[in-house]
Amino acid sequence: MVQANDFYFGGLHLAGNVSNPVGSKVTPVTVAQLPGLNTLGISLARIDCAPWGINPPHTHPRASEILTVIEGTLEVGFVTSNPDNRLITKVLSKGDVFVFPVGLIHFQRNVGYSNAIAIAALGSQNPGVITIANTVFGSNLDIATDILAKAFQVDKSIAGQIQSKF
Amino acid sequence: MVQANDFYFGGLHLAGNVSNPVGSKVTPVTVAQLPGLNTLGISLARIDCAPWGINPPHTHPRASEILTVIEGTLEVGFVTSNPDNRLITKVLSKGDVFVFPVGLIHFQRNVGYSNAIAIAALGSQNPGVITIANTVFGSNLDIATDILAKAFQVDKSIAGQIQSKF
Amino acid sequence: MVQANDFYFGGLHLAGNVSNPVGSKVTPVTVAQLPGLNTLGISLARIDCAPWGINPPHTHPRASEILTVIEGTLEVGFVTSNPDNRLITKVLSKGDVFVFPVGLIHFQRNVGYSNAIAIAALGSQNPGVITIANTVFGSNLDIATDILAKAFQVDKSIAGQIQSKF
Amino acid sequence: MVQANDFYFGGLHLAGNVSNPVGSKVTPVTVAQLPGLNTLGISLARIDCAPWGINPPHTHPRASEILTVIEGTLEVGFVTSNPDNRLITKVLSKGDVFVFPVGLIHFQRNVGYSNAIAIAALGSQNPGVITIANTVFGSNLDIATDILAKAFQVDKSIAGQIQSKF
Amino acid sequence: MVQANDFYFGGLHLAGNVSNPVGSKVTPVTVAQLPGLNTLGISLARIDCAPWGINPPHTHPRASEILTVIEGTLEVGFVTSNPDNRLITKVLSKGDVFVFPVGLIHFQRNVGYSNAIAIAALGSQNPGVITIANTVFGSNLDIATDILAKAFQVDKSIAGQIQSKF
Amino acid sequence: MVQANDFYFGGLHLAGNVSNPVGSKVTPVTVAQLPGLNTLGISLARIDCAPWGINPPHTHPRASEILTVIEGTLEVGFVTSNPDNRLITKVLSKGDVFVFPVGLIHFQRNVGYSNAIAIAALGSQNPGVITIANTVFGSNLDIATDILAKAFQVDKSIAGQIQSKF
Repeated sequence: MVQANDFYFGGLHLAGNVSNPVGSKVTPVTVAQLPGLNTLGISLARIDCAPWGINPPHTHPRASEILTVIEGTLEVGFVTSNPDNRLITKVLSKGDVFVFPVGLIHFQRNVGYSNAIAIAALGSQNPGVITIANTVFGSNLDIATDILAKAFQVDKSIAGQIQSKF
Repeated sequence: MVQANDFYFGGLHLAGNVSNPVGSKVTPVTVAQLPGLNTLGISLARIDCAPWGINPPHTHPRASEILTVIEGTLEVGFVTSNPDNRLITKVLSKGDVFVFPVGLIHFQRNVGYSNAIAIAALGSQNPGVITIANTVFGSNLDIATDILAKAFQVDKSIAGQIQSKF
Repeated sequence: MVQANDFYFGGLHLAGNVSNPVGSKVTPVTVAQLPGLNTLGISLARIDCAPWGINPPHTHPRASEILTVIEGTLEVGFVTSNPDNRLITKVLSKGDVFVFPVGLIHFQRNVGYSNAIAIAALGSQNPGVITIANTVFGSNLDIATDILAKAFQVDKSIAGQIQSKF
Repeated sequence: MVQANDFYFGGLHLAGNVSNPVGSKVTPVTVAQLPGLNTLGISLARIDCAPWGINPPHTHPRASEILTVIEGTLEVGFVTSNPDNRLITKVLSKGDVFVFPVGLIHFQRNVGYSNAIAIAALGSQNPGVITIANTVFGSNLDIATDILAKAFQVDKSIAGQIQSKF
Repeated sequence: MVQANDFYFGGLHLAGNVSNPVGSKVTPVTVAQLPGLNTLGISLARIDCAPWGINPPHTHPRASEILTVIEGTLEVGFVTSNPDNRLITKVLSKGDVFVFPVGLIHFQRNVGYSNAIAIAALGSQNPGVITIANTVFGSNLDIATDILAKAFQVDKSIAGQIQSKF
Repeated sequence: MVQANDFYFGGLHLAGNVSNPVGSKVTPVTVAQLPGLNTLGISLARIDCAPWGINPPHTHPRASEILTVIEGTLEVGFVTSNPDNRLITKVLSKGDVFVFPVGLIHFQRNVGYSNAIAIAALGSQNPGVITIANTVFGSNLDIATDILAKAFQVDKSIAGQIQSKF
C-alpha cells in the first residue's frame, strides 16, 4: 500500500557541488530517486552552475525539458536537427522559462557573476542524459580514433588527445 | 521559422496576487502562454500561497504533476480513487518535491508564517485545471440544486447557499 | 494459454441495487473483473438509477466515457474546466448516446418515472472513479476542515457536518 | 463554442434493417456521426442480427472491441494470429460481455430464435471496419483472381465465382 | 548487463524456402528473435517469393509496414476499409518502396521471372501476422461452415471443401 | 482520394554519392519524401559507405532504428547514456541486423574493401537526424567557443579550429 513517502523527495534546496571541470552539477529526481513517478511520465532536475561553469552540450533521449531560472543568469541554447542546425539561444534571468524539444542537443552557461540555479522538468520518469563530449570521446570502450578524427575533421592525434582526457 | 522567443516565457519570479478568498494564485505556463510547448507534452505553473491561504482541491484532467517548494512550508495532499479514498499527505519545506498522479484530487495549504512559493511541472502542454468547488457549485449554468444536495448529503437550502457564493 | 472465459464477463443484465442514499448503482467491467481487457484500453460499466436517484458528480482520471441509455430517461451533464466551467447538459431517452471527455466532472440524474439503465464504455482498462463528494468530504483520513470550509466558502461547522456524514 | 449536441447522438434504440444477405446490420456511432468524440479515442456501434443472421468475419484495424448482448443469443468468436490461429468462441446471452483484441478477425452469429441486439464499444474514435469477404473478394478493383485462388487453395473458376457475387 | 548480441540478428541474407503451396516465405526479426527490440516499437521481416509465388492476403494487427524490393519484381496491394474497399496496387521493381497502413489487408505477388526479395519494416516489436485464408478457413477449431458459407456467399459444400484444405 | 503513388517511393537501389569528407551518403524515405507515411510512425533510409567511409556519430531524436546490411562489411556501434557510456559495437556482414535505441548516439564504419550498403528502418515518419560534430561545431550561429572548449576539454584555439572546418 502506497505511503506519502513514495511520492516524496527531499533536499532539492541544497546546492550541488560545482567543483569539477565544467563547473556545474545536475541533481536528478527521476523514478530512480522517487518511485512514485513510475508510469507518470514526468521528472525533475536541479541544475547548479558556478559563475565560470557550463552544463555542457547534452541530450535527453526520451524527454523534452522545460527549465526555470531560480537564481542568477544563464545563457541557454539548443541546435535544431539536420540540415539547418540552427542555434536557438537566449540569456535568461531569474523567473525566465525556456523549452528544449525532445532529443535536441542543448546546453546552459552561467553568464553572470554569482552561482546560477535552475529547475528543469522533463517529460519522462526516466529521461536519460547523454553528455555529448563524454559519450563520444569518453565511452567505455573507446570509439575508434579514426572515426572521431573523420567525424570532427581533426588529426587522429588531436582526436586521441581529447579521448585521453575523458 | 521558429525563433528563441517561441520557446521562452518571462516573469515567473514575480509573486502572484493572493488577495482573494482562497489566498493563493496560480500562474500557468502552458502552450497558451508559451507556443513552443506545442506537441512536447509538458508545462509549468507557479503557485503563490499567503500564510492563511490554500490552493483548493482541484484536478488536472490530462496531466500528472511534480511540485517543488521554492519558499515556505506547504501541506500537500491527494486522495486516491474509489473505493479507498485514502488521503496521502505530507508537510513540505523548501526543496521538497511531491507528486500528484494524473486526475486525482489534490490541494496545497500554507502551514507556515510567510508566503509559500512552489513550481509545479505537468505532463501535458494543455493540462487543464478543474477547481472542484467552483466547478460543482459555481458552474455556468448551475447544476440542479437537488443533485448537489443529494451528492453532498446536505439540505437543498445549504446546497443553494453554497451555489449562491460562487 | 488463453481461454474464452478470459475474454468473458456475465450478468450485466442484472439490475444493480439502488437502495442507497444516492439511488443508483454502478456495476464495473474493468480489467479487475475481466482479465482479457489487459493492455486493450477499454472497459464498461452498467449504471442503474432509481426514479429519484442520481449518479453523483464524479470523474474518471484515466478515461473518456461514451454512455448509451438502455431504459428510462436520464439528465446528464459535464462541466468544462477553468476558467469557463460551462455546464453541458441534456435529457436523454432510450437509445440516446452522450460523451464525457477524460477527467471532466460529470453526473446523471433520473428525470423519469421508472428505473433508468445505461451502458457506459470507457477508454481505459482501468479508468478509475472519483466520486467528488465522498473523496473531498469522506476521505480516509479527513482533509483538514478549514481547507474544505475555505474551498467551498462555508463555515467550518458546516464543512465539518458534511464530513461527518461520509 | 461547443454545445451539448456536439456530444450527443440519438436513435440507437432503433432496430437496424437486417433484410440483407448476411441478416445483420451495424449502426456506427464514431467521430463521423458524433463530432464530440474527436481526440477521445472511443466509439460505439449497435449490432442487430436476425435469427438466421451473422455479422460476418471482420476486423477493426485501429481498435479493440468490448461487446454487450442486450437481447437474444449470440455465438461470438475471434481467431488468434499466426501460427496458432486458435478459435476463441462462446455463446452469449443477454447481459454477457465479450472482448475482441485489436486487429483480430472476429464474428457474431445469432444462435437463438429471435432478433439479437448488442452494443459494441471500440477503443478509437475512428476504428475502421474491414469485412473480410467483401474486402478480399469484392474490392474495387478486383484483386487478381489467381492470387485469391492460390491463397484460398481453390480453382481460379471458384475464386472468380466468389468474386462475381460481391 | 546488455551485450552487443542482444541487439543483433544474423542471416537475413539467406533465402527462405519457397517450396510450399503459396511459393513464398517470410523470415521474421521481431522481439521473439531479437530481444533488444523490446519496448522499441520496430521490427523487420525478409520476404522471399518464387516466380510463381504470392505472399497471400494478410494483416498485421498492431503495425504499419514499409517494404523495399531488394531483387525482382513484385505486384503489391492493399484494400482500404469499408465502405470503399478500394484496391491500391502497384508493380514494384528493385529499389521501390511501398507502405501498408496498420491493419489493412495486403499482399505481394511475384510478377517477374526470377525470385523476388523484399525487406519489410514494421512499426511494432510484436506486429503479429494474420494470414486471411488460413485464419478464416483453417482456424483451430473450425469456424462454423455456415458462417463462412454466408460470409463468402458460397454453398456450404464449397466452404467445407476450402476448410478441408487448411 | 489517395492513389497508389501516395504510398510509393522509387530509386532506393541507386547508390548514394559518397564523394564527401566522411565517405558516406544517407538517402532518406520519410514523410517528406513519401506522403503516405503520415501518421504511420515508420520510415526508411538507405546508407552507402565507401571503403574508407563512416556514417559519423549521430542521433535520431524521435526514433529507434533497425539496420540491415545489404552489401559489404560495417562496424556499427552505439553508446549507452550517462553514467556508464558503454560502447556496444559489432562488425556486421551481409544479412546482419542491428538495433539502435531511440536517441542514443550511434555510427557505422565500413571495415571492408568494397562499398557497403544498408537499409535502416526508423520508428517515426519524421525521425530527425542530428549529426553530432556538425551540430556542435558547425551550428548556425556558432555555439560560443569557450563552451565547446570546456565541454571537450581542449584549448579554445583547438575548439575554434574545429568550428572553422564546419
